[in-house]
Amino acid sequence: MSGREAPWRRESFAHFRTIPTRWLDNDVYGHVNNVVYYAYFDTVVNAHLIEAGLLDIAASPVIGLVVETQCRFFSSLAFPDIVTAGLRVAELGSSSVRYEIALFRNDAIQASAQGHFVHVYVARATQRPTPLPGPVRAALQALRSPAPSG
Amino acid sequence: MSGREAPWRRESFAHFRTIPTRWLDNDVYGHVNNVVYYAYFDTVVNAHLIEAGLLDIAASPVIGLVVETQCRFFSSLAFPDIVTAGLRVAELGSSSVRYEIALFRNDAIQASAQGHFVHVYVARATQRPTPLPGPVRAALQALRSPAPSG
Amino acid sequence: MSGREAPWRRESFAHFRTIPTRWLDNDVYGHVNNVVYYAYFDTVVNAHLIEAGLLDIAASPVIGLVVETQCRFFSSLAFPDIVTAGLRVAELGSSSVRYEIALFRNDAIQASAQGHFVHVYVARATQRPTPLPGPVRAALQALRSPAPSG
Amino acid sequence: MSGREAPWRRESFAHFRTIPTRWLDNDVYGHVNNVVYYAYFDTVVNAHLIEAGLLDIAASPVIGLVVETQCRFFSSLAFPDIVTAGLRVAELGSSSVRYEIALFRNDAIQASAQGHFVHVYVARATQRPTPLPGPVRAALQALRSPAPSG
Repeated sequence: MSGREAPWRRESFAHFRTIPTRWLDNDVYGHVNNVVYYAYFDTVVNAHLIEAGLLDIAASPVIGLVVETQCRFFSSLAFPDIVTAGLRVAELGSSSVRYEIALFRNDAIQASAQGHFVHVYVARATQRPTPLPGPVRAALQALRSPAPSG
Repeated sequence: MSGREAPWRRESFAHFRTIPTRWLDNDVYGHVNNVVYYAYFDTVVNAHLIEAGLLDIAASPVIGLVVETQCRFFSSLAFPDIVTAGLRVAELGSSSVRYEIALFRNDAIQASAQGHFVHVYVARATQRPTPLPGPVRAALQALRSPAPSG
Repeated sequence: MSGREAPWRRESFAHFRTIPTRWLDNDVYGHVNNVVYYAYFDTVVNAHLIEAGLLDIAASPVIGLVVETQCRFFSSLAFPDIVTAGLRVAELGSSSVRYEIALFRNDAIQASAQGHFVHVYVARATQRPTPLPGPVRAALQALRSPAPSG
Repeated sequence: MSGREAPWRRESFAHFRTIPTRWLDNDVYGHVNNVVYYAYFDTVVNAHLIEAGLLDIAASPVIGLVVETQCRFFSSLAFPDIVTAGLRVAELGSSSVRYEIALFRNDAIQASAQGHFVHVYVARATQRPTPLPGPVRAALQALRSPAPSG
């Protein structure tokens, strides 16, 4: 279709998470199914939030709702590959954040797939948009990439 | 972030498939997890291909590989909702097809979520791009929407 | 290993639910992966509870926790098969219920797979076992099979 | 219902695999859904077979089909827990193997859940039972637990 962007590289990311594939990730063609890449996406995002103390699944009064995701697929992953997910923040709005995520197969330095993931922060009780809490904003600033789409 | 497109409506689609939600589709926030929407996407696409006689999972010498997907989320789905997926073809290239898919909750006429799904056809043996087989092209022409993104 | 029980038949069930397979249900061998059968199991159980007004996912003060499940696999299911799940109650304890579930492929009268699913009812706040609420018990009595394992 | 077996302990296993939880593993009650435990089961079994050179997903003429699985659930797992799966062989038949698997939460020494997983080996082409290949049998012998159900 249109011209495709190039695969991102490991050196464009500073935050990583290791995600081993599972048998069930493979589909009938013998590769990780396209759907499962998004399970890697929200795992790397939410694990970062939880481990940084920014999200308590049961109790946080403000939570991120996913409003848009996208993934481009360059080459296959397959069980039992180990995936390394790179995570960076590409845009910070008043109540939203756009993450960029790249998935690297085993020791590869070029992404097998990459995309974005947009959270809008809402009050859990009302589901209405709300400004990013200060500590969340500060932590996400630290995830901004030096070269936003490099 | 950027201005958001409006939810698509049922009348912009002619091909539909009913997809009941499952208990496991719900995540910890009580709604269908964002990842699962893509499972609905590739179900409606591949079910159509199989039922139209255009795809034999085990034997077709030419298959579609997913190179890009995207979804925008407007409102929640939740188990035990019944989802109706609308499917149309937005672009037909020589070896690729871009589907647009909308997911309607129960009797809603506006989509809860919508997005696209791009297949590039490859020879199964070599995984190299190959022109769309004639019968596939003909069937996909019939799925072209009168108003491509209406 | 040991002698295997025979596949259950449709006439041994009175409550059914239709569960269409999804593309992602198939694994690399071209059949529905063994894990996914359990997604059918908890879908048929919980959909019944919700639709009978016995479970409000967000609000019920008493909920069922799964303490044991088992499945025996006789023959394959594969996308795009339509699965019909049969559900019956085999045992009702003071705070627990043992369901038996059979999965029928398309129009088959013998189960492709069958098993059980045991819920222990707990107070949501304390996660301690609690007697089955009266309306739940009454509804589950109505699901008892005439021939418990026939 | 009936008396329950006690949770197995780490010292009863010699083969382990680390399986990080994923966001999507959690269900609406905030814990890993019962279905997902079985995804851990077939991941530990098949990863062992592949890494030991005993299974080539695309090419092995003889493969294991799952004929029975069971799991007992003692306590919850939840994202972002790290699961350690212990694997041992409890029974070796002429054409079948019964694995026992325990899932340990983070540093726990008692299993959160445990169960079994039975493979019958079949010729891929005919799907008919076939004796365990010699190298498979030898490798599985090495996984026999000293105390089969301890």
